[in-house]
Amino acid sequence: MSPTPRPRIPVGVLGATGTVGQRFLSLLADHPWFRVVAVTGSDRTVGKRYGEAVQWILPGDVPAEAAALTVLPTAPDLAGADGKEIPLLFSALGSDVAGPAEAELRDAGYFVVSNAGSHRMDHDVPLVVPEVNGDHLEILRGRKGRGAIATNPNCSTIGLVLALRPLHDRFGIEAVNVVTLQAVSGAGLPGVASLQILDNVIPYIPSEEEKIESETCRILGRLGGAGGGPGIEPAPIAISAQCNRVPVLDGHTECVSVRLRDSAAPAQAAAALRELDPPGTRDLPSAPRPPIVVVEAADRPQPRLDRGRGRGMAVTVGRIRPCPVLDLRFVLLSHNTLRGAAGGALLVAEQAVAAGLVEGVVSPVGQAVGGQLLQARGLKPRKSS
Amino acid sequence: MSPTPRPRIPVGVLGATGTVGQRFLSLLADHPWFRVVAVTGSDRTVGKRYGEAVQWILPGDVPAEAAALTVLPTAPDLAGADGKEIPLLFSALGSDVAGPAEAELRDAGYFVVSNAGSHRMDHDVPLVVPEVNGDHLEILRGRKGRGAIATNPNCSTIGLVLALRPLHDRFGIEAVNVVTLQAVSGAGLPGVASLQILDNVIPYIPSEEEKIESETCRILGRLGGAGGGPGIEPAPIAISAQCNRVPVLDGHTECVSVRLRDSAAPAQAAAALRELDPPGTRDLPSAPRPPIVVVEAADRPQPRLDRGRGRGMAVTVGRIRPCPVLDLRFVLLSHNTLRGAAGGALLVAEQAVAAGLVEGVVSPVGQAVGGQLLQARGLKPRKSS
Amino acid sequence: MSPTPRPRIPVGVLGATGTVGQRFLSLLADHPWFRVVAVTGSDRTVGKRYGEAVQWILPGDVPAEAAALTVLPTAPDLAGADGKEIPLLFSALGSDVAGPAEAELRDAGYFVVSNAGSHRMDHDVPLVVPEVNGDHLEILRGRKGRGAIATNPNCSTIGLVLALRPLHDRFGIEAVNVVTLQAVSGAGLPGVASLQILDNVIPYIPSEEEKIESETCRILGRLGGAGGGPGIEPAPIAISAQCNRVPVLDGHTECVSVRLRDSAAPAQAAAALRELDPPGTRDLPSAPRPPIVVVEAADRPQPRLDRGRGRGMAVTVGRIRPCPVLDLRFVLLSHNTLRGAAGGALLVAEQAVAAGLVEGVVSPVGQAVGGQLLQARGLKPRKSS
Amino acid sequence: MSPTPRPRIPVGVLGATGTVGQRFLSLLADHPWFRVVAVTGSDRTVGKRYGEAVQWILPGDVPAEAAALTVLPTAPDLAGADGKEIPLLFSALGSDVAGPAEAELRDAGYFVVSNAGSHRMDHDVPLVVPEVNGDHLEILRGRKGRGAIATNPNCSTIGLVLALRPLHDRFGIEAVNVVTLQAVSGAGLPGVASLQILDNVIPYIPSEEEKIESETCRILGRLGGAGGGPGIEPAPIAISAQCNRVPVLDGHTECVSVRLRDSAAPAQAAAALRELDPPGTRDLPSAPRPPIVVVEAADRPQPRLDRGRGRGMAVTVGRIRPCPVLDLRFVLLSHNTLRGAAGGALLVAEQAVAAGLVEGVVSPVGQAVGGQLLQARGLKPRKSS
Repeated sequence: MSPTPRPRIPVGVLGATGTVGQRFLSLLADHPWFRVVAVTGSDRTVGKRYGEAVQWILPGDVPAEAAALTVLPTAPDLAGADGKEIPLLFSALGSDVAGPAEAELRDAGYFVVSNAGSHRMDHDVPLVVPEVNGDHLEILRGRKGRGAIATNPNCSTIGLVLALRPLHDRFGIEAVNVVTLQAVSGAGLPGVASLQILDNVIPYIPSEEEKIESETCRILGRLGGAGGGPGIEPAPIAISAQCNRVPVLDGHTECVSVRLRDSAAPAQAAAALRELDPPGTRDLPSAPRPPIVVVEAADRPQPRLDRGRGRGMAVTVGRIRPCPVLDLRFVLLSHNTLRGAAGGALLVAEQAVAAGLVEGVVSPVGQAVGGQLLQARGLKPRKSS
Repeated sequence: MSPTPRPRIPVGVLGATGTVGQRFLSLLADHPWFRVVAVTGSDRTVGKRYGEAVQWILPGDVPAEAAALTVLPTAPDLAGADGKEIPLLFSALGSDVAGPAEAELRDAGYFVVSNAGSHRMDHDVPLVVPEVNGDHLEILRGRKGRGAIATNPNCSTIGLVLALRPLHDRFGIEAVNVVTLQAVSGAGLPGVASLQILDNVIPYIPSEEEKIESETCRILGRLGGAGGGPGIEPAPIAISAQCNRVPVLDGHTECVSVRLRDSAAPAQAAAALRELDPPGTRDLPSAPRPPIVVVEAADRPQPRLDRGRGRGMAVTVGRIRPCPVLDLRFVLLSHNTLRGAAGGALLVAEQAVAAGLVEGVVSPVGQAVGGQLLQARGLKPRKSS
Repeated sequence: MSPTPRPRIPVGVLGATGTVGQRFLSLLADHPWFRVVAVTGSDRTVGKRYGEAVQWILPGDVPAEAAALTVLPTAPDLAGADGKEIPLLFSALGSDVAGPAEAELRDAGYFVVSNAGSHRMDHDVPLVVPEVNGDHLEILRGRKGRGAIATNPNCSTIGLVLALRPLHDRFGIEAVNVVTLQAVSGAGLPGVASLQILDNVIPYIPSEEEKIESETCRILGRLGGAGGGPGIEPAPIAISAQCNRVPVLDGHTECVSVRLRDSAAPAQAAAALRELDPPGTRDLPSAPRPPIVVVEAADRPQPRLDRGRGRGMAVTVGRIRPCPVLDLRFVLLSHNTLRGAAGGALLVAEQAVAAGLVEGVVSPVGQAVGGQLLQARGLKPRKSS
Repeated sequence: MSPTPRPRIPVGVLGATGTVGQRFLSLLADHPWFRVVAVTGSDRTVGKRYGEAVQWILPGDVPAEAAALTVLPTAPDLAGADGKEIPLLFSALGSDVAGPAEAELRDAGYFVVSNAGSHRMDHDVPLVVPEVNGDHLEILRGRKGRGAIATNPNCSTIGLVLALRPLHDRFGIEAVNVVTLQAVSGAGLPGVASLQILDNVIPYIPSEEEKIESETCRILGRLGGAGGGPGIEPAPIAISAQCNRVPVLDGHTECVSVRLRDSAAPAQAAAALRELDPPGTRDLPSAPRPPIVVVEAADRPQPRLDRGRGRGMAVTVGRIRPCPVLDLRFVLLSHNTLRGAAGGALLVAEQAVAAGLVEGVVSPVGQAVGGQLLQARGLKPRKSS
């Protein structure tokens, strides 16, 4: 986890002035592998210094190095270079513009790790939580051309699949009922008006329930598509998600019930959750150890007290107990703008770099990690072209 | 609903200085049937004027009539009278003292309508939401002695059973998964510390889940116990409740999924909910018309916008849609200190008085209502002894 | 205060879909004098039914009568009529468009009562809080043409001048130091983002301090300008305002210190505040009686508990005590979207109508009120042309 | 600031289970000079492991070393030792018990650094903010007996005097008007009920205004009492404080106006604030560098964004501008449970230790600091007895 002596990899951040973009810059400010050399923004901000263009909403000041960068338009000729100079881009673009913009940049040769929803269900785009399905990144190996898009799931999905992964592997999940209590930071800025959420709950977040229901099945799905091709076969799990916005700044709470193929006592489930520790992510700078913290206190997890675990990258699970309707129920919490957005995407990028999937970038941890992606999930490596 | 010309019935409020007690006094300030003549409080407040003893937390000032009353100890010789003078008591006692205190007052001949949890599951105490199971009050008819206890369910249960009643009658409910987002006022004062709930969610409320799971089955149960006796046979419904405290002042939001015996399209369920209008409560002063408001907007109900419907006595239901795991899901909202506490208990008292169950008190709406309790639920009246 | 038998005066609401516009429609729904027959909105909403165009943020539903109106553009030919049919308009326009739009409507003959800041300091536009300086409306009497603009002060100014008026009359105010704690509803929608205000204070509201400092002097100023003309001579008071946004929905709290010409014990100041009861507003439908409520409890006023006094139209003052730096200090509270916006403007309109200042509209309370405007402030009436 | 190789000084924390006690343990967990070896608590907690006795409200878990300690009663024979073994105690006792308990421990020979208000105005107890009046600690030098009490001011006073110190030194402060917006954490647990503060402001905090008004004058006062004795002569400044509780977790905001002897342009005031850097605190582990951060953005400081500066030990000042009533006004923010409570007391202890004032403890930074206490304030050292 200590900085490597070799030069840090130059990266760009797309949509850098928004709330997710700010998180990216905050996390990348002292990153051992990456160094931000370009930021892009909307027409209103292009040409300004980032430090002047941004309405900074995180504690403290804008990171000095980023503050001095000039905001560029989101277009292929980033930094006026040919693309080789900035092999890796982080996308914090809004879903209104991410679709075509990211595709254009991929086609221009960039490796784009995106937090946007636009390409998550594309058959040639892996949707990845490294500890859960890092092996899905393999669909990018041997691809035509240098460019690629890899994506990070929806903020609510990430915490959920981290908790479901070990339960599914051990006991077989057949159905999931999840009700979320989501923080306002997930909506960005201006996002949820204070007049709407103070002393209130909004029991609806557009498209959120559909995303959780579809993304979860894809992420827990099997590498290797229906016809033996390189796609992902979704896991056959029935999922019901009900999403609420609550007056919390950061941290999504989720009340989960699951129906299992094999019976599981709460203590067995807790043990399975605690043991999640896939080899493919152990050496990545942003990976929390352990990824899942199981707490015993009856009234935990709580957003304000637990969202910071593992520097905002760990998921906290508590209240594991039998469910009178399905089989098992529990409460989970994850930090929605760290693990659930910028931090999660950063971890995907770290894994992709470590696995040698980003063309022109040598893995800081050796080629070993690449194989581990598959070994971690019990699969055999395919040949790289 | 207009005030009757006859003299109002003198009533007392037990535990009148707490948050629920304050709601009782607020609601009773201009009640057409009842007039508060006695208030009780803890040792710290006994002997003081109510207006000085109370830390009033509702908008505006203490109702003038109540402010002038002297706080009495919670004991049988209320007002120094023999009990006849105050036939009806409302109990806002905390669960730590309610059990023996209410029993003692019942034995002394008072008709006690309680918001406390202590006697809710007693076989000779009806647990009642008038529009749902007003007929359960019949177990008090022909009782030995004049005294009685009737109870109001837990604040989260009330909203739930109101929505479940018409669905159960029409489609047959087999299982319920409910996740609550509960307001802080439900915990009274000092209740939840601001330091615990600002920017936070607490995913645990002691005993709350158990109460919802057991009370719901009792309320939806059938009058007439197992052996043909006068008890209640609980409804055979599997229920899972997961309870959260959120930074909302008033109004419990509940995300509900149900498994049904007969299939129900969302529109059919909405129609069933809208049609709930039991004859046994129509003429009661505190009864909302209709009891259930079904809203169509995708982002409703919301606590701040909908908790006041029907003067805080109606339940609002929205987002009725199919459930991929069970059959149907929806969101409901009810005002936890009005419908869910003082207002709910007041409605129970009104129904008991209307049905002629409070000894020494003539029903303001005629004897007809008594019969309606049973007719409304499709049962035949038993003989009063 | 009871509805008059005569037909209600048709009025229009400009900018009706915003938060202030919604308050206007809510207050006008059952108004005894006025009836809303036209609403205007932005291009996005023109042509739609108001009920569909508005994102209603007040409790309950859109008033039925307003919901059915078609949203019109903000332009002189309202309702396709010649202006006579709608003599009175309420403006809830944003400050970005209010200036020219209101002037155009005035020139077209409408009497516009505006909540916007654009014309407040115009020499021919009265800036009025009826109980404070209703006589300033007299500058509209005998005006050329039928049209006029009358304005309502900034939301923070209104509460302040109500409390200052009787103190100034009795003791002579020389300086005022005011620090405000303002509710988020004052910023409208989207207004303050939840991400900015949860667990936070923003110690700055653009232009707010300047408005308080200048408007207060104008409102407390003397009718009759410098050269004996019809203008307003501002009161020579030094004012410092410091404004903060706090996570409160409705109700501005203000901590005030004043330097007085004549010494005033707290009890004398309280008496002066309690006695404010100008004859010129007594019979207006929206006027609170009394306009100022003085409370004794050490921890009052509080926004949530006191903002509703006088149906949101009264100002609550507490904690009156000596000031070690200036002379007297106290805390005041007023409801910023009722008294401080729509309700305040409505009261101005009522006073203007009562005083016979709205051409073509007969005063519902007789001509007497007109004279009272001046008599209430110790001035002689000028002739109406 | 790096840990010294010598053994860390054993310390105790009195009242360790409360919110301030928790902050002490959190700050002391990795302190380079101090090591917690004893914790005390109320009767309810005595004998339990601290980790079980405490209701931990800070993010993350109880520090492991503290969790294993057994809670002791607050009495002189701490750890069953003679007092020599634990030379230094931190008091987080409530004001209800702190007075006699701290006096008893002082008389038993302990050096007690207290956050409680009980002894702050005692003539032989220094009331200290190290960067402001560290020289006041000198009244403890040459004291009879080994024991002593040194105190930390009220949480609101600390931020204020830090900002006033350089202005007073440079321009001469004659009067101060301060209005505070205080966080709920200042009231501890249970403290302010959520039912009282959500969507609300409470314009009153018992005794707070008096504390600010008296403590500020003492802290800015001159070492050397009226008769040339060792006391403190208070600064002759007129101070008005008005205190409000707002729904913020941590961070007190203060709107300040000052009347100055010499005129000061805002830029001059800003420069004076930025230059505060007293030599007597430079090498203390908890001292922020700089102590005051001046920000330029119009809408800063804000509690959530600025309370963490200098690890919660720096004061942030913004909006420096002329005042139309007094001379200069500005907004300041300080973290009330770090700088304003446990962190502030810790800094006092560090300074006392560095100055050689704690008997039996060798200064980790050499004797030089002792002299600097006085030199920093332009005074000559007195002889130590």
